[in-house]
Amino acid sequence: MKLKPKKIAHIGIAVEDLDETLKIFSDLFGLECKFRKVIEEQQIEVAGVDIGESSLEFFMPLTRNSTVGRFIEKKGPGLHHIAFEVDSIKDWIEKLEKDEVKIIDKKPRKGASNHLISFLHPKSTGGILIELEEY
Amino acid sequence: MKLKPKKIAHIGIAVEDLDETLKIFSDLFGLECKFRKVIEEQQIEVAGVDIGESSLEFFMPLTRNSTVGRFIEKKGPGLHHIAFEVDSIKDWIEKLEKDEVKIIDKKPRKGASNHLISFLHPKSTGGILIELEEY
Repeated sequence: MKLKPKKIAHIGIAVEDLDETLKIFSDLFGLECKFRKVIEEQQIEVAGVDIGESSLEFFMPLTRNSTVGRFIEKKGPGLHHIAFEVDSIKDWIEKLEKDEVKIIDKKPRKGASNHLISFLHPKSTGGILIELEEY
Repeated sequence: MKLKPKKIAHIGIAVEDLDETLKIFSDLFGLECKFRKVIEEQQIEVAGVDIGESSLEFFMPLTRNSTVGRFIEKKGPGLHHIAFEVDSIKDWIEKLEKDEVKIIDKKPRKGASNHLISFLHPKSTGGILIELEEY
């Protein structure tokens, strides 16, 4: 059976000021914050708004040396990754390993929304950072 | 009435090699090319794949001096903009002008999929390049 992602689960966006970003998306676009939390081990604070079947997740670094902090230092704030919703992350990792894709999280881990996630290495995906997310 | 975007119409992605990108998304994710065309006036070639209710649109610069070419030179290939589907782009431009948002295309123009589009200036939207698209 050919595997196919079901939808865009979220777009991950690196921001410098989470309060300001949430205010902009609420005031200009009527998109309200659905969750917000600090993830200590990654030194980020994350918040999400829903749009259609997807959501936008905003990541603010709490230290410059976090992954998101380094991204902002290098490229500036902005779009960071796309998360695809998949049925079984285990099946996908098996398939993608056969395709010789470099997988960052070979063992899926819990993401910001408590779903199982796994990031793929952008070297294998045309320079685009892609996350798989199992609901 | 409060305006709200309906969904993510597409994510715009700047790529260096359109053939290679389409091959990656087909081989790894089963996402097949739905359209592909050259847009002479912007000096880009664009192609799209569908995912859920949204799509991914890949933009390859045909010259270094195109907008996408300059983006890649500055930031490298990767995620470029998010397009929100809206009901009436005219209503949105009216509303956003009242909100003092900087609008790049005050007069909507035809986008890659022949829909009316308008880009907002990232300075007004937290550093994120957002396009409005009317189907």
